[in-house]
Amino acid sequence: MQVKDVDKHRFKQLFEEKLANAVKGESVLDEAMAYATLDGGKRVRPVGVYLGALAAGGSASLDETLDVALALELVHSYSLVHDDLPCMDDDELRRGKPTVHKRFGYATAVLAGDALLTRAMQLLTGVHSAAFEKAAAEIACGALRMVYGQQSDLDGCATREEYLGMYADKTGALIVAAFRAGALLSGADEETTGAITEFAKHLGLAFQLADDLLDDGDVSILDVEGRDAVERMLAEETSRAELAAKSLNAAEELISFADALMKRTY
Amino acid sequence: MQVKDVDKHRFKQLFEEKLANAVKGESVLDEAMAYATLDGGKRVRPVGVYLGALAAGGSASLDETLDVALALELVHSYSLVHDDLPCMDDDELRRGKPTVHKRFGYATAVLAGDALLTRAMQLLTGVHSAAFEKAAAEIACGALRMVYGQQSDLDGCATREEYLGMYADKTGALIVAAFRAGALLSGADEETTGAITEFAKHLGLAFQLADDLLDDGDVSILDVEGRDAVERMLAEETSRAELAAKSLNAAEELISFADALMKRTY
Repeated sequence: MQVKDVDKHRFKQLFEEKLANAVKGESVLDEAMAYATLDGGKRVRPVGVYLGALAAGGSASLDETLDVALALELVHSYSLVHDDLPCMDDDELRRGKPTVHKRFGYATAVLAGDALLTRAMQLLTGVHSAAFEKAAAEIACGALRMVYGQQSDLDGCATREEYLGMYADKTGALIVAAFRAGALLSGADEETTGAITEFAKHLGLAFQLADDLLDDGDVSILDVEGRDAVERMLAEETSRAELAAKSLNAAEELISFADALMKRTY
Repeated sequence: MQVKDVDKHRFKQLFEEKLANAVKGESVLDEAMAYATLDGGKRVRPVGVYLGALAAGGSASLDETLDVALALELVHSYSLVHDDLPCMDDDELRRGKPTVHKRFGYATAVLAGDALLTRAMQLLTGVHSAAFEKAAAEIACGALRMVYGQQSDLDGCATREEYLGMYADKTGALIVAAFRAGALLSGADEETTGAITEFAKHLGLAFQLADDLLDDGDVSILDVEGRDAVERMLAEETSRAELAAKSLNAAEELISFADALMKRTY
């Protein structure tokens, strides 16, 4: 089956099943991994893989797309587990539930994050098609940029440029990786991959800015730019995302996805 | 070039060059990764990949073997960085130097571990030969078993069986992965891979037991078995490793490697 044979809703259903199976197990580590991932999240990144594949024509293998989406969501989840740790953001709650370290202890939380990332690595290695391998490489690159982005966030940002650079790594890279991976799974050529990447970059930044406007109070680009400027940036990024989408297959789906993302966070 | 074209000393030289290049960079994260890895370590696991490839005939691509060895050493290094953390073993020193969290802070240490694992993932993904992909899958599986082993260690062991199970995962799995990956890179058949695996399993356990006897005082299998019994187990595992090696290419190299390992730790 190919990606074009299922709609987004069906893809998400199949994704949830795959995810639940991937984190099943007897160890407390499996319990922590399930707790960290089976959280009713929006699955922005898995959907990004699906849409990237669709935008490039939808010929991607459905199984490969689900596996890549799963690996990506595990990478995303591991980053949240570690991000919440006392030595990092020190959060006691995530989506109203105790964070993994509050529920399972600090050590198991570190290990659960490690296990999630390692499980992603396991999914992405081994013998696969060339398209899958290229997609897997995208996920790994996005994951690496993300860690550097987290270090940049720790170091602190003092200017607009520093914030934009940090955002591009810390949150943008995985979103870009999602869409690019999907595109590569559908065998996208350089031009199409480029347009999909443009869409994903602007979408990723818009998503982050909308988040900042909502979480006003946390340290963010609002501290250096002010609310009006950030609202203007958000509007500009949203426009650019829509413009990039127009030249692609499934342009309407991409635009309505961007729209829904913004509405849920803003 | 093939693995059989270089001796162990030359392989280690080439390995160190590759490792140094892999952790170069401007970010404090690169500094932490370099600090964690360029530590004059014995490189047991990289040498294991080399020897596994040699034991299976030595036809493995030298470049692929170095890349797999590098990924494996990054996995090993990440595990030590996280293992030393205050919430885990809480070690201030490793090989007489301040641990990564003492030198760079808790947060950067968590991220440095994450970055090392992610860098390994990056090395193992992407378009490669089928032999490389199989080897990469071995590394990923070993890495996953290792995290579960660390959780088992956290949970605590009360019997000989529990210790042996935990050791097999926590320390044995990466050593087995090294030799198996090397063997697969040389296109080893099932029988040869099986014999190399046997060697690596017994070697790994012997290494761990020798370590326990040396570190007498730390929590280990010595607490449930007593010194005499553990010394007998060590002798048995060393014999079994030597027996497994005898049927393989480069048997002498394997046996002298096992011997040197035991001497450095016991």
